[in-house]
Amino acid sequence: MTLSMYQASVPLLTRSLHNLVAILEKGAAHAEAQNIDPIVLINSRLYPNMFPLGRQVQIASDIARRGAARLAGLEAPKLEDDETTFAQLIDRLHKTTAYLETLTPEQIDGSEKKSITLPVGQDTMTFEGLSYLLYFMLPNVSFHVTTAYNILRHSGVELGKRDYLGQF
Amino acid sequence: MTLSMYQASVPLLTRSLHNLVAILEKGAAHAEAQNIDPIVLINSRLYPNMFPLGRQVQIASDIARRGAARLAGLEAPKLEDDETTFAQLIDRLHKTTAYLETLTPEQIDGSEKKSITLPVGQDTMTFEGLSYLLYFMLPNVSFHVTTAYNILRHSGVELGKRDYLGQF
Repeated sequence: MTLSMYQASVPLLTRSLHNLVAILEKGAAHAEAQNIDPIVLINSRLYPNMFPLGRQVQIASDIARRGAARLAGLEAPKLEDDETTFAQLIDRLHKTTAYLETLTPEQIDGSEKKSITLPVGQDTMTFEGLSYLLYFMLPNVSFHVTTAYNILRHSGVELGKRDYLGQF
Repeated sequence: MTLSMYQASVPLLTRSLHNLVAILEKGAAHAEAQNIDPIVLINSRLYPNMFPLGRQVQIASDIARRGAARLAGLEAPKLEDDETTFAQLIDRLHKTTAYLETLTPEQIDGSEKKSITLPVGQDTMTFEGLSYLLYFMLPNVSFHVTTAYNILRHSGVELGKRDYLGQF
């Protein structure tokens, strides 16, 4: 028995973004309970030249959406980067998981050696599908979900590892 | 073509911990250049009830070492949690990757449905091997590596996403 490229991509990405929705919901509830303007949290960052919470969420969505689309040989739907509320960020994640759920094993399986070229900063990078998934997409999505979690934790939102890992 | 449980575990975990070594080396160099006592960084945390940097590194090592051992049906070597310097934390990661490199595809492949029970806080949890790897081990290691990165970034260490993702 082995895993397929689909098994190692869409269900993990979907789960990770669902967990991020729950994390953002706790952030929104904290802001309301503490009478904090939500935009303060959405603009919070861990260091002046790191991205703020809202951008972390946008990037997590982008890497998951575009990455899965590339494995499938499709173009991911574009989303405007114009969210300014928790509800809008959560809606972006729902749109992202809804898109991921349209992708089928038939579209993604067999992409292990597919050549994938993507823009990274000013450069382009080329990967084989398997390396792209395991060494770029998955750790990158985890990075932005964790950083969103850390920004909210650092801002005093009560979150625990279970919020990040999700229910089992 | 498909992926094996080995391909989706040992090389990723090893890579992630090697990247964490490079991140810690930049932390150590920053402390020296800025005349910061390294223990201040090792004890830094993003919120008073979060674990500090040193503990994040220990946990990343534990999840990777014990997780891969469980997939292989082995007991992971124990490590004392007594590191107080960057050199000692880096040495722990080197010991961890050296252990991971002793594990073979023959030991790990075929563990997709292996029943895995582990202590989680006060409880135990039982997983099938595939879910354990994809939904627990991989995101969990990424979480602690990212949080270590975020603690150092928050402390002013100059790090970028490439340090986290590693070289391609």
